Amino acid sequence: MPTALAVSPAVVDTVRIAALAHTADRLTIRWSDGRESPYPAIWLADNRPDRRDRPDGQRLFDAIDLPDGIAIGSVAVSAEGSVEIHLTGFDTPARFDAAWLRAHALDPASRAERRRRPVLWGSSLALPAGDYAAVTSDGGARAAWLRQAYDHGFSLLRGVPAEPGMVCMVVELFGFVRETNYGRLFDVVAVDKPQNLAFTALSLGNHTDNPYRDPVPQLQLLHCLEAAAEGGESVVVDGFAAAERLRRETPDAFALLTRRAVPFRYVEPGKVDLRNRAPLIELDAEGDLAAVRYNNRSIAPFDLDPDEVGPFYDAYRRFGRLLHDPGLTVGFRLAPGDLFIVDNQRVLHGRRGFSAGRRWLQGCYADKDGLTSTLFSLEAAR
Amino acid sequence: MPTALAVSPAVVDTVRIAALAHTADRLTIRWSDGRESPYPAIWLADNRPDRRDRPDGQRLFDAIDLPDGIAIGSVAVSAEGSVEIHLTGFDTPARFDAAWLRAHALDPASRAERRRRPVLWGSSLALPAGDYAAVTSDGGARAAWLRQAYDHGFSLLRGVPAEPGMVCMVVELFGFVRETNYGRLFDVVAVDKPQNLAFTALSLGNHTDNPYRDPVPQLQLLHCLEAAAEGGESVVVDGFAAAERLRRETPDAFALLTRRAVPFRYVEPGKVDLRNRAPLIELDAEGDLAAVRYNNRSIAPFDLDPDEVGPFYDAYRRFGRLLHDPGLTVGFRLAPGDLFIVDNQRVLHGRRGFSAGRRWLQGCYADKDGLTSTLFSLEAAR
Repeated sequence: MPTALAVSPAVVDTVRIAALAHTADRLTIRWSDGRESPYPAIWLADNRPDRRDRPDGQRLFDAIDLPDGIAIGSVAVSAEGSVEIHLTGFDTPARFDAAWLRAHALDPASRAERRRRPVLWGSSLALPAGDYAAVTSDGGARAAWLRQAYDHGFSLLRGVPAEPGMVCMVVELFGFVRETNYGRLFDVVAVDKPQNLAFTALSLGNHTDNPYRDPVPQLQLLHCLEAAAEGGESVVVDGFAAAERLRRETPDAFALLTRRAVPFRYVEPGKVDLRNRAPLIELDAEGDLAAVRYNNRSIAPFDLDPDEVGPFYDAYRRFGRLLHDPGLTVGFRLAPGDLFIVDNQRVLHGRRGFSAGRRWLQGCYADKDGLTSTLFSLEAAR
Repeated sequence: MPTALAVSPAVVDTVRIAALAHTADRLTIRWSDGRESPYPAIWLADNRPDRRDRPDGQRLFDAIDLPDGIAIGSVAVSAEGSVEIHLTGFDTPARFDAAWLRAHALDPASRAERRRRPVLWGSSLALPAGDYAAVTSDGGARAAWLRQAYDHGFSLLRGVPAEPGMVCMVVELFGFVRETNYGRLFDVVAVDKPQNLAFTALSLGNHTDNPYRDPVPQLQLLHCLEAAAEGGESVVVDGFAAAERLRRETPDAFALLTRRAVPFRYVEPGKVDLRNRAPLIELDAEGDLAAVRYNNRSIAPFDLDPDEVGPFYDAYRRFGRLLHDPGLTVGFRLAPGDLFIVDNQRVLHGRRGFSAGRRWLQGCYADKDGLTSTLFSLEAAR
């Protein structure tokens, strides 16, 4: 039978502990906003604050070393609001901060609050943009710019000096350049005898970069040094918005694209042979979108059961058409000094062909670990 | 009804085309070794060699632009062994090389041949090792060393000059250094007030590095500059072998670990806040092992339905015990000049504590794209 305790309310920001109850297996906290949060005994034992370096620090032991049959003996709330729990197999009680328990609660509402919800967008997107001078000098402006890139998977940066190499300097504001066979940075210009069709004046359909590479570069930055006199406009599309529309309209097609890997390949004979197999739409363990990949230039022959080839092409072509749907794409023109960052696992980019004048962009890859670490650290400091 | 063609045998290495048949929807090739390979019409249209830059080059169009209702009109085999296919909606026939068709065939046996099969190992592993002088000077030796790392997820390299910075030089033999908040390289030595428990003399349980980082560093290299007089032995374990044993012995526990994401976190307040959510055992779209993650220091409180917490701890602890099972682990002692590389998505490493003498390793991260690209290019050149 649960043991109910009447407690003096403990403050967790504005939410307080209203009541506590426990069995041997589980502590249940009822909060002042009505939420009820269960905490299993083994979870509490595993997360004892005295077994960590700091509250958010490294753990000093492994859960494989926990005793068997952990049970809750008794629970008390201190005047300051910490919850003291006696667990069998431990000499001292575990003392949890009420705010920590609320932040890590396992009830459905608390778990849902912690899930990331990307902001999906279509052709009506007002292009998010930051200002280079502000982003370099002010932590708040930098956090705001990174937050746009994180939430939308796309953001512009205006006023970057139109000088070679600056694209890497922008990466160093938040993270680290991902060097590849294309170098630390690469020039996107039309050249004779290009190894890659990107280095022509041709239009490029909407695509993610380097799906033939594992790990795929998670971020791409493109910085405009010279704009073509005619043509060369940039296009972006939210691959997550397109994928969610596919999931809604044709769930079978969506499911097929998430369940079958596609081979991608890029070869420069004798020098480079990059290969990857991955689904066009990748889900995480919770069924949320994790990544999209789409690149007609580097997609290799499908490696599928012959009977699935027809349905797979239907699904692929349906998704590809959504990724070029005018209701989802946004076009814009980069001027010298403009730069954009895309989440290369979510937002596709393309360009219109160009004819007159030289067009010169510099591109660079980076990864999200640096972006999110800088973003969360800056936001925590405010 | 299929149209059967009698053909003169076309050579594909030693395998020849024995017979061809087709319907409007599908070409079927019977090979001289008895294998029968079907090729759907839309797949053939999408892979027309004349729509690519080179046989393995970039595609010049997108499958969304293919006409609807593609059908095979007629098929012929030339004297040199190429297969000429008339497809509705195209002015010219598609001419496929027989060897290319065999290499990309969609019958079950051909598809199985292309699947990667990692070589699983346990405590009886004879440690794979290369020699630095040979690997730097000879492409064959380099390919052999990289092949060991690719197949086993682990390889030693002996005779690397015991000088600071050499670990990055070894990465540059095949790929690119992944820079992180720890730098391009990091010193693994015992220090006062360490930010990370790695920088102590404590023993470290078997772990993968940086599961709190997305993308996780796919390769880690550790180079010994000074060995402790006592202790500090290295330990490695094949996480894929352990996971396959878990799948065999307790399929429900295995399935639970593949289906639920675990949060990982590493914080240096005000500077670094790295977070990731990912399953301990990650499968690819085909159900093969893609990655394991295990790090008791950086695993964060489980974010699970309370009713799943118990079964999840059972599964986690079972997997953790397998990862420390003496039947699966291999111990060895690094001497100055020794280096090892691990596939950080597969092979866990740990160390015994040390007491007497200074122990100094330098570590560095890299990714598999460079390793596999160099390996496949070197192997193709032989």
